[in-house]
Amino acid sequence: MVQTTPSKVDLAEKFGQFCDHWAPRIVARYNDNEVRLAKAEGDFQWHSHTDSDELFLVVSGTLTMEFRGHTEVLEQGQMIVVPRGTEHRPRALNGEVQMVIIDPKDTANTGDPATATKAIDL
Amino acid sequence: MVQTTPSKVDLAEKFGQFCDHWAPRIVARYNDNEVRLAKAEGDFQWHSHTDSDELFLVVSGTLTMEFRGHTEVLEQGQMIVVPRGTEHRPRALNGEVQMVIIDPKDTANTGDPATATKAIDL
Repeated sequence: MVQTTPSKVDLAEKFGQFCDHWAPRIVARYNDNEVRLAKAEGDFQWHSHTDSDELFLVVSGTLTMEFRGHTEVLEQGQMIVVPRGTEHRPRALNGEVQMVIIDPKDTANTGDPATATKAIDL
Repeated sequence: MVQTTPSKVDLAEKFGQFCDHWAPRIVARYNDNEVRLAKAEGDFQWHSHTDSDELFLVVSGTLTMEFRGHTEVLEQGQMIVVPRGTEHRPRALNGEVQMVIIDPKDTANTGDPATATKAIDL
């Protein structure tokens, strides 16, 4: 994925290259951030990221983002920033969700490297 | 735009709230980055950002991103990272483009604070 000249990334094409859920793929990097794609179905676990905010942008499907005492339901073209230290549980309750997630590099998707599914280059 | 509880951002709704071109609006912040929306028509100027990469994601329209000796044409759902120090010229040659741009906070859209259109909160 090392690029000598800048080249575009087609999100739909990249989503077509993997099938597993809650297993982030890195499609670009900028300023020590990773642009990750993930497919989701069912529940992820409650977790938080101590030191970094996290950005979610829904590309297809319906993403339910639970917070303690508060829920946001996101459709295509909607995004949310989860502030650092904020417990959240992403859920895909109505079929598959495709989403872009932006994190600082090496961020553990569960908030804990011991339990994380490591983001890998696509 | 200060939020006490995380709430979603609807990109289409936000794009509906302004009309001017090449004038970025900030719709979210995370980790000292700004998520900016911009509408574009015609040519922007050649410029670069010395110290930061810049991410573009096309939401609608056709964005032509010129580099010295190389051009990428981006449609809806396609993104590109312009590496720091890389001269580029964004162009919207076939009608209006709507795009998400992510920059570190206070990044000058022209690469030079003296000529920039300052990104403002929407």
